[in-house]
Amino acid sequence: MSNKKIKPSLSKGTRDFLPAEVAKRNYIFDAIKGVFRKYGFEQIETPAIEKLETLTGKYGDEGDKLLFKILNSGDYLGEIRNSKYEIQNLDTKEITPLISEKGLRYDLTVPLARYVVQHQENLAFPFRRFHIGPVWRADRPQKGRYQEFYQCDADVIGSTSVLNEVELLLIFIESFEKLQVKNYELRISNRKIISGLAETLQEQEKFTDIIIAIDKLDKIGLEKVTEELSAKGLSTDKLSFIKNFLSITGSNSEKLSALKNLLSNSPVALLGIKELEFILSKFKNSQAVPIIDTTLARGLDYYTGLIVEVKPTGVQMGSIASGGRYDNLTEMFGGLNMSGVGISFGIERIFDVMEELNLFPPTIAEGVKVLFVPRDESVEDFTFMQVEALRNAGFPAEIFLGNVKKQKHFDYVAAKNIHFIVEVGENEVKTHLFRLRNAKTREMHDNLNLMQIIGFLSAV
Amino acid sequence: MSNKKIKPSLSKGTRDFLPAEVAKRNYIFDAIKGVFRKYGFEQIETPAIEKLETLTGKYGDEGDKLLFKILNSGDYLGEIRNSKYEIQNLDTKEITPLISEKGLRYDLTVPLARYVVQHQENLAFPFRRFHIGPVWRADRPQKGRYQEFYQCDADVIGSTSVLNEVELLLIFIESFEKLQVKNYELRISNRKIISGLAETLQEQEKFTDIIIAIDKLDKIGLEKVTEELSAKGLSTDKLSFIKNFLSITGSNSEKLSALKNLLSNSPVALLGIKELEFILSKFKNSQAVPIIDTTLARGLDYYTGLIVEVKPTGVQMGSIASGGRYDNLTEMFGGLNMSGVGISFGIERIFDVMEELNLFPPTIAEGVKVLFVPRDESVEDFTFMQVEALRNAGFPAEIFLGNVKKQKHFDYVAAKNIHFIVEVGENEVKTHLFRLRNAKTREMHDNLNLMQIIGFLSAV
Repeated sequence: MSNKKIKPSLSKGTRDFLPAEVAKRNYIFDAIKGVFRKYGFEQIETPAIEKLETLTGKYGDEGDKLLFKILNSGDYLGEIRNSKYEIQNLDTKEITPLISEKGLRYDLTVPLARYVVQHQENLAFPFRRFHIGPVWRADRPQKGRYQEFYQCDADVIGSTSVLNEVELLLIFIESFEKLQVKNYELRISNRKIISGLAETLQEQEKFTDIIIAIDKLDKIGLEKVTEELSAKGLSTDKLSFIKNFLSITGSNSEKLSALKNLLSNSPVALLGIKELEFILSKFKNSQAVPIIDTTLARGLDYYTGLIVEVKPTGVQMGSIASGGRYDNLTEMFGGLNMSGVGISFGIERIFDVMEELNLFPPTIAEGVKVLFVPRDESVEDFTFMQVEALRNAGFPAEIFLGNVKKQKHFDYVAAKNIHFIVEVGENEVKTHLFRLRNAKTREMHDNLNLMQIIGFLSAV
Repeated sequence: MSNKKIKPSLSKGTRDFLPAEVAKRNYIFDAIKGVFRKYGFEQIETPAIEKLETLTGKYGDEGDKLLFKILNSGDYLGEIRNSKYEIQNLDTKEITPLISEKGLRYDLTVPLARYVVQHQENLAFPFRRFHIGPVWRADRPQKGRYQEFYQCDADVIGSTSVLNEVELLLIFIESFEKLQVKNYELRISNRKIISGLAETLQEQEKFTDIIIAIDKLDKIGLEKVTEELSAKGLSTDKLSFIKNFLSITGSNSEKLSALKNLLSNSPVALLGIKELEFILSKFKNSQAVPIIDTTLARGLDYYTGLIVEVKPTGVQMGSIASGGRYDNLTEMFGGLNMSGVGISFGIERIFDVMEELNLFPPTIAEGVKVLFVPRDESVEDFTFMQVEALRNAGFPAEIFLGNVKKQKHFDYVAAKNIHFIVEVGENEVKTHLFRLRNAKTREMHDNLNLMQIIGFLSAV
């Protein structure tokens, strides 16, 4: 191993996680996994590395630029020189496909589509899977945005029943209840309604432009949205119609009436409205009722039915979860056209919300029950035997093998959230009686033998 | 999204995992994690992407070639053209550092060294951490060897006590007991003994050659090993001394005597022997006793003390776990020189052993308790309400929303390991009484209301 010394640092946009952070992240993952499993979702894994032909062209030009590409192994440049290409005539865009065939996955959705088509013979449909893992994007790193971050998705592939949508919304409600995240809105809309809006305006070919503009409403405001659509060639009449659409307010049933009224001539809009009505009928007695939001559009262009966003209230933050139905996902890999519907938890933001609201239980990062501290090397063996006896009785326990003279064991129990300390010296070796000290309250329990320590720890 | 159709396939050396495989892998991870935690090890995470300056030069020239390197974003070729370099004069080796600054981690050990140096102010020492995650190597893929695979490591950094070695061996024993892997040998040796062998031969500068040769013994046999060392310039006398060393047999105490006898003039060898004796003294009443193996060398050149390999017996397979002490790991990142000792579980091979010996419990991939199947769309709503009632009572349950006419629900329960089916038709809607069918035994329970179903499921 080389002895060259380097000041250690992370690649930009990536993170290390300290033990306490991992414990908190696992707490979120485990809560959500439990709900997924209760609803019959099974976990899958796909590789981090995918062929670039699988990834490219799925996320638009912007997305293609953000793919991390892996250099081919071996003498890739020599191979080009031996081929028909002249390197000096190539630019970056031309050379990249010649020297890179693999990339890092950009999300878990395109790998899902590939997976479903590739393994369809071995899957049970409707295929209900969840997948939690890192994805990579060569985005400019900024506060709360990373180049490597986790996604946490559940999808149903191969069923058109809108009851799937209902179940996925219930998963949101149950997961956030488990995590004690109470202040949020479950905002829903339906792409069929926006499609019906375009139909009503006789601007179907501007469907994507309309979605992209509406999606920016939160950030740029209604005026800028209409300006943008005006630039795309929409008439003043049509813009004022869209303004009316985006200004629909009131209760869910008031919004539904307004939508039916506004889009009464569009069969596809009425279908979307009917789906929303059906979904809402399932939440009549629910602790959390989805809210219709006509300003919801969602950036991704593959959604075709329900769209949903979970927006935390009371903290400054964007959506912490989202989802929708898509009808054509597996088509890109030549699969039978299977309708899908899915949700995605924004783990990184949920973590931030829970930190800000102090929602992590103090017990989740707890260490072993007790730390035994040998006062010097001569009693290490004896101390170790006590710790082994505790472990054999089923109690997680540690022997401290660090610097006792500098009292480092007190830092140690604090850092690792260990509740009890037993120091062991010559006297303990003689008597087999110990002092159990509560590391937080400093309360002492004297003259306990090992069985009494076990009894005491069982009771706390 | 592009409609270009691609036949989906994986990048070579990578894998998808079906739900049943993920369940089995999680079973292994969870068992080992439980033992790690019992011994006071805390989980950490590091990013998949590291700076190449962190990774390069740590794994020898061969390792450097196997690093997956990530192309810089943006117009990397244009940047070179604007610099002092002439592309046509560069070869692959020269251009790579100009167009790639990041790579995928090759193991979890170098990232650990970086992590410990970088975060030392925020860690409690001795630092006991475990880390489970994928690593990447551009190896030629072959049976059982992948370009993306998991490592599962536990290490203690910052304590020289040999009790750490004892604890790590106990973790092996306890983990394999939990996994019901019973036929294996825990082979141990000590690098100080090989160091003492080189010292006795006055060939200290050939220490690494000797290790590399001995490490091949299993594969190439004793004759080839001595040939290789002869080629390195070792005399016939010295080769015959090494042969004697490698031919030591008998019980542990016989081996220790033979070693003391053979290497009596080497203080460092005697220190290594003393460490082995100490370790073995802690396993006198153990269910699994480590076996001294003088032919054990371990390929990695950073070990300095104990080395260990877990070798399954009764199946054709290499080691399923390994480890050792290393004294200089954090030094490469300019850290204080902290001694470390660690172990690594070979998850992929453990999986294969457990498959071959049929050691996975049949219950680990179990689905929800019961599948409710609406016979047609008109009863979906009613069926959904029954499923919701079950879930609210805490029972994982599913409603089947696939193709009932083609009887696909029977494939579904088989694939997802669901034990009970309830079909729902008009009659059930009228009577609220159901037939619960055991999907495996085909046993029926008729005329149950929902409370009775709950009672029944609670009892099985």
